[in-house]
Amino acid sequence: MTRPLALTQGDPAGIGPEIALKAWLRRDDGLPPFFVLSDPDFLARAAARLGLDVPVRVVVPENAEAVFAKALPVVPLSRRVSAEPSRPDPASAAATIESIEQAVALTRSGEAAAVVTCPIAKHVLYAAGFHHPGHTEFLAALAAEDGRPAPRSVMMLWSESLAVVPVTVHIPLKDVPDALTQDLVVETGRIVAHDLRTRFGLARPRLALAGLNPHAGEAGTMGTEERDVIAPAIDRLQAEGIEASGPWPADTMFHARARKGYDAALAMYHDQALVPIKTVAFDDAVNVTLGLPFVRTSPDHGTAFDIAGSGIARPDSLIAALRLAGRLATNSTPHS
Amino acid sequence: MTRPLALTQGDPAGIGPEIALKAWLRRDDGLPPFFVLSDPDFLARAAARLGLDVPVRVVVPENAEAVFAKALPVVPLSRRVSAEPSRPDPASAAATIESIEQAVALTRSGEAAAVVTCPIAKHVLYAAGFHHPGHTEFLAALAAEDGRPAPRSVMMLWSESLAVVPVTVHIPLKDVPDALTQDLVVETGRIVAHDLRTRFGLARPRLALAGLNPHAGEAGTMGTEERDVIAPAIDRLQAEGIEASGPWPADTMFHARARKGYDAALAMYHDQALVPIKTVAFDDAVNVTLGLPFVRTSPDHGTAFDIAGSGIARPDSLIAALRLAGRLATNSTPHS
Repeated sequence: MTRPLALTQGDPAGIGPEIALKAWLRRDDGLPPFFVLSDPDFLARAAARLGLDVPVRVVVPENAEAVFAKALPVVPLSRRVSAEPSRPDPASAAATIESIEQAVALTRSGEAAAVVTCPIAKHVLYAAGFHHPGHTEFLAALAAEDGRPAPRSVMMLWSESLAVVPVTVHIPLKDVPDALTQDLVVETGRIVAHDLRTRFGLARPRLALAGLNPHAGEAGTMGTEERDVIAPAIDRLQAEGIEASGPWPADTMFHARARKGYDAALAMYHDQALVPIKTVAFDDAVNVTLGLPFVRTSPDHGTAFDIAGSGIARPDSLIAALRLAGRLATNSTPHS
Repeated sequence: MTRPLALTQGDPAGIGPEIALKAWLRRDDGLPPFFVLSDPDFLARAAARLGLDVPVRVVVPENAEAVFAKALPVVPLSRRVSAEPSRPDPASAAATIESIEQAVALTRSGEAAAVVTCPIAKHVLYAAGFHHPGHTEFLAALAAEDGRPAPRSVMMLWSESLAVVPVTVHIPLKDVPDALTQDLVVETGRIVAHDLRTRFGLARPRLALAGLNPHAGEAGTMGTEERDVIAPAIDRLQAEGIEASGPWPADTMFHARARKGYDAALAMYHDQALVPIKTVAFDDAVNVTLGLPFVRTSPDHGTAFDIAGSGIARPDSLIAALRLAGRLATNSTPHS
């Protein structure tokens, strides 16, 4: 038996319901079985409105695989969902949050193989009292063992041709140089190397670290962070037996030949990581959270309220996220 | 008659001689005629050493086109060149500089159609007393009319599928936010729009400006430069009749569909421009200097002293630079 993936509904006014339905329609395309944590009537209405021929079936997780070929399996929440596309409403926040909580609980109990999340809108959840900085931090908090701090999580953007990790993420560019510390680079590299080994099955993962400055600082003439922060962090990672290289000039790291030289690139800030992967894999890059005690992937786009309900949302990134979650979950649980 | 392009030799210890010889061997591949400003004996020895079947012929510029089909036309410098590959030597600096000066002089006099430069190494020239910050600034100084300041020049990286302009260039990342002023963005956009019209022949060039911060600052929650600097600069450009848009999140600007929406992207710093273009066009991106009173292009790589003399240097970027120079020179001089 294949344990199913637990897919959260995401913000019900976004494109989550539409891409979940469309992903199921492409189930014969090598998709691992999954169930959605949502209100089955809401999903059935969404399918009808979009003209998508998707029968919805209420299941418990253990029946999801058997149902998957013929209907979209839905594990119901305790709440009804009545969102309108493109109209984000804090009234739906409780269901959105419950869907995430249930996905984590079912994955931790072993009833689901991994968590795959549809996009949420933080401002909608904040209006309903949500107090975590974001989706990933909320998952990390749910992953915390009783009485222990939440694990440190790391965002990786992954595609078949390139995997990137931003060492600093959602901060203004001017704050990046101060935020970039040796410890942060080392801790990030350690988590990436660990998860590439244990989840991606790479015996000896190769990390390539970017410089911060043009030409990686050109021997200190255009910036000192390479010498003072990044190079020492690489030395420390190497001393731990991790195959880390760099600091490399970022502009020559991401073309097709260069990408063959490493398994993941560590970029020093958001756009240094996101520009290359969205340039080469815009439709099918996947967001993978490393460092958690379970597998979690998600599409690398947002709720797209502007097009929700129009029927034009593409499920490619969600499909890639489901595929990758299935693959990682298999590596992670060799006894299942 | 087609006026030939003037190709500088670049640092003779780098890969310049090799890629010039190899480019000539691909002359039937749609290359406009060009001559090299160098020591003909030096180039003949380089060809012999590399085993390249390239006859070298001394010419004056007006005979270059007639010779080009059968031999590499060389307009001799006043100096001999005796560099060894991979051994940069300040003794060759005078010839390197004379080659650039002659190329500009012949282009300004109308004997050549445009300047194409092979890579130089600034530290070699500095050791010989050169005092310009770089190649482009030297060209701008040579372009200055008598008694007037040098024109402001702008570096564009161009390929068939993407053209990018970094608004700030060779400075540490931490200095970028302070260096980024409304005036700098406006002046850069103005020069880019002007040269796209007059040289690239675009009646109504479309400029897309990137934000500085993740998600272009996400409405001011992750940085304020979009609101305070970039958006007002876009308003000013639009008020001048220039089709400028943005600030756009950099990560979603450079994939294939997005690139159709503009003719040139203005990036706020070096890697934001160079990462996407070197990712999609590593071998054939061209460096074009905008804002000068003549056309100047160059390959977008350096002297590559590490591989000079080994015979493995690829002429692709130089060939693309020659082709583009020919095209721009034709647009720029409709009466020739």
